[in-house]
Amino acid sequence: MLENIDLTKKIKKSGYKEQIPTLEYKLGELQRKARELKIPIIIVFEGWDAAGKGTMINRLMISMDPRGYTVNPTNPPNEEELLRPFLWRFWKKTPERGRIAIFDRSWYGKVLVEKINKIVKKKDCLAAYPEICSFERQLTDEGTVIIKFFLHINKNEQKRRFKLLLKNPSTAWKVTKEDWKHHKKYDEYAKAVEEMLEKTDTEYAPWTIIEANDRRFATLKIFNTVAATIEQKINTMTQPSNKSASKIISKSSVSLKKMTSSILDKIDLSISISKDEYTEELKKYQQRIMELEHEAYIRRIPVIILYEGWDSAGKGGNIKRLVRGMDPRGYQVIPIVAPNDIEKNHHYLWRFWEHIPKSGHIAIFDRTWYGRVLVERVEGYCSQNEWKRSYREINEMEEQLTNFGTVLIKFWIHISAEEQLSRFKAREATPHKQWKITDEDWRNRKKWNQYKTAIDEMLFRTSTTYSPWTIVEANSKFYARIKTLKTVVETLEKHIEKER
Amino acid sequence: MLENIDLTKKIKKSGYKEQIPTLEYKLGELQRKARELKIPIIIVFEGWDAAGKGTMINRLMISMDPRGYTVNPTNPPNEEELLRPFLWRFWKKTPERGRIAIFDRSWYGKVLVEKINKIVKKKDCLAAYPEICSFERQLTDEGTVIIKFFLHINKNEQKRRFKLLLKNPSTAWKVTKEDWKHHKKYDEYAKAVEEMLEKTDTEYAPWTIIEANDRRFATLKIFNTVAATIEQKINTMTQPSNKSASKIISKSSVSLKKMTSSILDKIDLSISISKDEYTEELKKYQQRIMELEHEAYIRRIPVIILYEGWDSAGKGGNIKRLVRGMDPRGYQVIPIVAPNDIEKNHHYLWRFWEHIPKSGHIAIFDRTWYGRVLVERVEGYCSQNEWKRSYREINEMEEQLTNFGTVLIKFWIHISAEEQLSRFKAREATPHKQWKITDEDWRNRKKWNQYKTAIDEMLFRTSTTYSPWTIVEANSKFYARIKTLKTVVETLEKHIEKER
Repeated sequence: MLENIDLTKKIKKSGYKEQIPTLEYKLGELQRKARELKIPIIIVFEGWDAAGKGTMINRLMISMDPRGYTVNPTNPPNEEELLRPFLWRFWKKTPERGRIAIFDRSWYGKVLVEKINKIVKKKDCLAAYPEICSFERQLTDEGTVIIKFFLHINKNEQKRRFKLLLKNPSTAWKVTKEDWKHHKKYDEYAKAVEEMLEKTDTEYAPWTIIEANDRRFATLKIFNTVAATIEQKINTMTQPSNKSASKIISKSSVSLKKMTSSILDKIDLSISISKDEYTEELKKYQQRIMELEHEAYIRRIPVIILYEGWDSAGKGGNIKRLVRGMDPRGYQVIPIVAPNDIEKNHHYLWRFWEHIPKSGHIAIFDRTWYGRVLVERVEGYCSQNEWKRSYREINEMEEQLTNFGTVLIKFWIHISAEEQLSRFKAREATPHKQWKITDEDWRNRKKWNQYKTAIDEMLFRTSTTYSPWTIVEANSKFYARIKTLKTVVETLEKHIEKER
Repeated sequence: MLENIDLTKKIKKSGYKEQIPTLEYKLGELQRKARELKIPIIIVFEGWDAAGKGTMINRLMISMDPRGYTVNPTNPPNEEELLRPFLWRFWKKTPERGRIAIFDRSWYGKVLVEKINKIVKKKDCLAAYPEICSFERQLTDEGTVIIKFFLHINKNEQKRRFKLLLKNPSTAWKVTKEDWKHHKKYDEYAKAVEEMLEKTDTEYAPWTIIEANDRRFATLKIFNTVAATIEQKINTMTQPSNKSASKIISKSSVSLKKMTSSILDKIDLSISISKDEYTEELKKYQQRIMELEHEAYIRRIPVIILYEGWDSAGKGGNIKRLVRGMDPRGYQVIPIVAPNDIEKNHHYLWRFWEHIPKSGHIAIFDRTWYGRVLVERVEGYCSQNEWKRSYREINEMEEQLTNFGTVLIKFWIHISAEEQLSRFKAREATPHKQWKITDEDWRNRKKWNQYKTAIDEMLFRTSTTYSPWTIVEANSKFYARIKTLKTVVETLEKHIEKER
């Protein structure tokens, strides 16, 4: 997930100064209201050394009534604490109803610093995840709001900040040997962070990644997230109907949405290749895929290749090139349309389970179960509860598939809004392509931004270590086709290599 | 859990004939209503060979509209099925909204027969539990009702039934070599069943154990359970207020309550020992406990000994004898009373986490976190949702403690209602004991049966392999004291032995 975070986000001083007073006022209001309603609130700050946790916590505290919160700095466990289960010391610090507990680092130390420094065994570290999840679930079940921040800066920025601190004699003491040791292990840490995010990003206590290269941006995003989360809780408590609550939220958190890292925005769509290169590569990869299909068959490896993407992004043409050389007895293309009546009368995953390929076979899905968090979410075909729940459901299903040995390759075929427009127009102008463009396409296009939000969240919440997304830059159809074929080839080769 | 099931339960033919028509009519009604409301229903039948699954399923089907259900017999997976994740074939058979799917054996084969016959590796078997739980949770989250029966008979009864079948030429074919092989492995199976019940008894899909030695009893309990569960779902869907729904249920399921296996009813309270024996044993065990306290201290083993029991069951006197010889620096007695204001403002487990002993120390709890599912449940101090949720929360906490290495010993000190009455009266008649008896004690006594139901459910749902209950027959105070001391000694010795 971290590699998808856009660390270039910035807020100008003027914009910052303009927003902060309103936010401070709002936070004060919300704190009072939450106190009245006796809502306990936990705010967790995790993040890289020198990412600015201390500064952020201070900034947040200033805006709040000091009688209502406690800040808990987390040091390595002392002797008393080591003699008890690791969550003991955090249980003791859970806030009373109506109070806010801020944790400067937290129980996640168990799976971060203690893991990296080999203080805990790998086995115990893995055992800690379910304990952490049940801790957080037990608290939220009784009404606690848990807000978890991970303050993210990249390795260079960390180095720059350490050096800056060292230059000034009054701050030099802040940079310890330990800090430099951690810095050297940045990549190892990053892996641990990824695992932590994957195993503990739950619907009851989700993580928010804070792009912390720019301090002003980080502050505003933290303020906005805290405000929106508390506001949502207050709304669900005071307004029994879920629907109206979510409406109020979406209104109040417009600025928050703008602050969410867009994975799509970072994609470089100018990338392309020449026709000659295309023809040559295509031939090469198609040949290789034919061989690999056979290898997978012999080794009884089940394979799922799935395509999601914008209308007219070129999924169909892409799939055509993929299967060109393949033996039709070994693969199947499964186009997914709107569910029929029987399918609607089952769990939404039911119809996809039907099509799970058997070992040795390849299933190619043209659109998939991700419809739940794309079209069904945007068009309101399912409730907010339902699509929010489905990130976990989808991850569970994909984990079961990969546990079974399935190779799962997921493509998001990406084009720009401008490219889509010119393709739509071209379709309308070409008689034999007119059937490809419908009123619905135009309607969907109007909701481009809503879809974009949904896609970004999907890419973030369902990119897992066992089943990552590959984003395909598809303004150039040639480039897109080669990239998907290449990805399929390399993923299968890697998997077969491992099996040897 | 299984050893606590009372297999002597019987229903007379006349009583059976009286109840069945009403139940059949009711089931028909509920089926129609569920269809209208589009509720999908899954009924799982697991159980011992010859426990009567087939008969029970037939009996159940007769009462229902055949257009509304499907029976799915579960055979060993065929080749097609083996080539896919094991839940695939069950996903395909999940019922449409408004329909009932009955499973004659099910996905639990993975952790029962396939485990025993070593078709799956131990690792894969353990991995199957979370997959099963997420399967059932995903379905219930979308509105499916899941009813799971385990039909229980003991080893002798199984043998008797096999022999009976063999006698009759027309049924002899039903008893296969495989059946006899399973019969011989009855105890190994029983262990697998225990593990299965423990890992998959969830609030969204709980197990119901059917005492199946008597066919009539089994039929009535199954009918009643199906009816009550569907009725509850219908009520929660048609009546938004949870409270009124639960009232209707408790009214309609009175007969079901009566059919629940009472663990307490099976306890032989006539058991006692002589004063001489008592004095001798007491001395012996107190001496040994002193030594073991020291051993636990040196080995840094944390120990929790907890007492729950009826008013005047003798918890206090029991604890007094337990600690008589102990070094007060190594143990602490923690009496639990009603929570104070600060405690009430936290998660109900918070105040108990406070008192978790450190490694090498012994914490003795006089009443505990089980108050949640006893007094708080019976007196309505918490909602039904809350106490139902807490079985899992308590099991999670105890598992975390035992994972950490804590030895957890749980006593239910049990007396009969008559014995309690005579003790209450004796207290009132003895001036220096009058403080021990309050109006509240008399009030609680009036709710004896409600408490009994709560205790039975507590013993059933929180007796786990990592932390089982010990029921102490306490009509004889002498016997009770020796039994608790002996249990403490033996449990600690076993634990220390394992550590060596």
